[in-house]
Amino acid sequence: MATIIFCSVNKTARTAARRCLVSHLKGFASAGESHSPLSSAHSPSLTLLSGTRWFSRGSSVRFMSHGTAGRSGAGRARRGALALSGAAAVAAAAAVAGLIANANHFQRAEMATKISQAGEKEKEKEEEEEEGDILERCRGFMSPPVTDIGVLQERKGEMRTRMEMLIMETQAEFCKALQQADGGTFKVDQWQRKEGGGGISCVMQDGKVFEKAGVNVSVVSGYLTEEAAKQMRSRGKVLKGKDGKLPFCAMGVSSVIHPKNPHIPTVHFNYRYFEIEESDGSKQWWFGGGTDLTPVYINKGDAFHFHNTLKEACDKHHPQYYPDFKKWCDRYFYIRHRGETRGIGGIFFDDLDSPNQEEVFSFVKSCARTVVPCYLPIVHKHLNDSFTDEEKDWQQVRRGRYVEFNLVYDRGVKFGLATPGSRIESILMSLPLTARWEYMHEPAKGTQEAEMLEVLRNPKEWV
Amino acid sequence: MATIIFCSVNKTARTAARRCLVSHLKGFASAGESHSPLSSAHSPSLTLLSGTRWFSRGSSVRFMSHGTAGRSGAGRARRGALALSGAAAVAAAAAVAGLIANANHFQRAEMATKISQAGEKEKEKEEEEEEGDILERCRGFMSPPVTDIGVLQERKGEMRTRMEMLIMETQAEFCKALQQADGGTFKVDQWQRKEGGGGISCVMQDGKVFEKAGVNVSVVSGYLTEEAAKQMRSRGKVLKGKDGKLPFCAMGVSSVIHPKNPHIPTVHFNYRYFEIEESDGSKQWWFGGGTDLTPVYINKGDAFHFHNTLKEACDKHHPQYYPDFKKWCDRYFYIRHRGETRGIGGIFFDDLDSPNQEEVFSFVKSCARTVVPCYLPIVHKHLNDSFTDEEKDWQQVRRGRYVEFNLVYDRGVKFGLATPGSRIESILMSLPLTARWEYMHEPAKGTQEAEMLEVLRNPKEWV
Repeated sequence: MATIIFCSVNKTARTAARRCLVSHLKGFASAGESHSPLSSAHSPSLTLLSGTRWFSRGSSVRFMSHGTAGRSGAGRARRGALALSGAAAVAAAAAVAGLIANANHFQRAEMATKISQAGEKEKEKEEEEEEGDILERCRGFMSPPVTDIGVLQERKGEMRTRMEMLIMETQAEFCKALQQADGGTFKVDQWQRKEGGGGISCVMQDGKVFEKAGVNVSVVSGYLTEEAAKQMRSRGKVLKGKDGKLPFCAMGVSSVIHPKNPHIPTVHFNYRYFEIEESDGSKQWWFGGGTDLTPVYINKGDAFHFHNTLKEACDKHHPQYYPDFKKWCDRYFYIRHRGETRGIGGIFFDDLDSPNQEEVFSFVKSCARTVVPCYLPIVHKHLNDSFTDEEKDWQQVRRGRYVEFNLVYDRGVKFGLATPGSRIESILMSLPLTARWEYMHEPAKGTQEAEMLEVLRNPKEWV
Repeated sequence: MATIIFCSVNKTARTAARRCLVSHLKGFASAGESHSPLSSAHSPSLTLLSGTRWFSRGSSVRFMSHGTAGRSGAGRARRGALALSGAAAVAAAAAVAGLIANANHFQRAEMATKISQAGEKEKEKEEEEEEGDILERCRGFMSPPVTDIGVLQERKGEMRTRMEMLIMETQAEFCKALQQADGGTFKVDQWQRKEGGGGISCVMQDGKVFEKAGVNVSVVSGYLTEEAAKQMRSRGKVLKGKDGKLPFCAMGVSSVIHPKNPHIPTVHFNYRYFEIEESDGSKQWWFGGGTDLTPVYINKGDAFHFHNTLKEACDKHHPQYYPDFKKWCDRYFYIRHRGETRGIGGIFFDDLDSPNQEEVFSFVKSCARTVVPCYLPIVHKHLNDSFTDEEKDWQQVRRGRYVEFNLVYDRGVKFGLATPGSRIESILMSLPLTARWEYMHEPAKGTQEAEMLEVLRNPKEWV
């Protein structure tokens, strides 16, 4: 088995290189990035070029962030123009939606955090990275961040800035790793929300390896009614606003990847942060998120690798995180009318606000940085697996179930679709390119398809 | 243009032949029926053989209804055995669901019925047909009816019997017409519901012409809570039950047909009847239903034929029916998050109980008998149309929208999925075999795809 190293080659990635991730699954080799310009007839498309220069083809938007603070200031002005010229009426229900992904049913995620000495050191190293120059770090992103870089620099120490930087980095790191595996490039759409904020949707469709891959960032802000604020908070706590209105800020990164080969599983992750201000000026905040795997066929090695990587990330923060969030995941991604889970799970948590903001952010950061090492080794391992028409058909049937979960149960999607002015394309980019519904489909006993169903009907412990 | 005549050739169909429907679209010729036995590994399958003998392969169930009342009695006994041997736990949420297909939003469908002298005569003729021998009429069905034939004979004059005979006839007439067009045969599953009643699901999958065709009958009875009864009634009227429970009976026929050729539109129809008994013994009843078309490309001739056939059926009963129920249909089949209707509509109504039961049933009967002449001429007209890969892709994208409507908005589906023990396969047989979701799909201006979208965004008058 070859040693697998995840590195990228441009400037921002130098930081990432410091935390090169080593795994022991076969088949992965580091490769250069591809930077092809992308175009879109429908909305301003932004592409990262190797010269760290963003621009939008076919529109007046131009953003350059090369080098100095002065240039950055110019970029800032241009970004203002982009904000004003945004054509489509877009909202970021996608991000807000993630924040209400799970309400009443589950236990409060309240645990004291135990951190080992080794963990403490790693944390310090990470803090160090975070203190790096904002502009420098932005160069590695798929597009300029949603918040003006100048504002991010001014508010460098605030949690909303640190989280926005994390989700932008997670998006870039994951997109680049997928591009490397596929050979294709992501289409990058930056969109604004009238009421405040916006997002960056990266989608690769009908690639060599990936049928549909979507990685979305959104950062939205504005005002919530007390009722909406209550709904958003999974514990349903009553929050008091000035004249019934509460300023809020919500942000998150979310992704669903549907590969072509039925031996490469679908993956989904979402990490999100929420801030809300009460009338007395006090701030409520919490984090949520999770990563889960949906294979078409059971591969015990893949399942172990995926869960074990998550467990290791969780264990650094609290020994109960993995077992509790694994169970929560199995409960959340459950297709009730089929009596089966969507996939083999992973972790899922919401409304996490203890022991303190720093510790929870540190945990979320560990999770976000675990996405690539959780998934990419599995992709590379099966990249050249052959498959039959029957296996492809079974994948399509499972895709149908994925659609059922997302449209019928997923609280984020439901909230997004019900919110007027939502950016529907970003919410529904999680749907596969193709899916299938066969009447009375039931795999024959003893087949690999039946084995998969058995696991979905009776979730297992993989680690 | 050839004259199109819809006739079938077996005994039951003799009655149907009396109302042979003449249309003036090209390409349709009457053909013999195909009666191949079908098998199912999953549930008792029942097939209509040319000797009017039903049997289930691979199970102990055998039902013969040939000839005399004595034989019918034997059949009754065996049918009892079938009811007891039903393996799967099934409920008929599908039918009940249809009954709550539309609640608060719409106007009360309350109109005095004007019937012309000619209409009166036709009605008399139809009554005559209905008075025909129950057993004789049952021979043309796709399977034995849900209710025991002996019970139907005893309660011949009751509305629930007359409606069950109508929905069984509608199912058979439509299935046979589709089989004739396709050359394939329907898989027929009869299922029971623990709490009372059951259904008959006919599905043809991956045929020559039809990718997926489902025609479902369900007849269920039992008790409702006052809350459930209130929800079911579209006007939300409070009903009083004995100890809070109300005996009810719900039945309906529903169907969705997804053809392979993108030039043949998808059709959906559903006709249903509901009875509920209050604590003082008084009976509440109402009818609901509709037929609507979902083309992939606009064909004005098809749209006119479809709507005009519906209008003619409606006009026989009330001049306001077609315009009102056409609008209701456009409002109901609306995909809010896309800002587009599911298709080009047709008619839709619910909670219809005036001027009296006889008149409403007569209207529903006209609608049910209009399904074949609405749709089959369009199928035959486009049977041999050639199509490109691009046209097939656009069909798949439209199928995706169909899935979105059915899973996100359709009240029947939502109710069915939320009802524990529902027969999920019957509820979701409306989903296409295949569907597609492309990110940011927007047809180029001036294309036929853009023309279709324009109509979906701004519903038109076709007649």
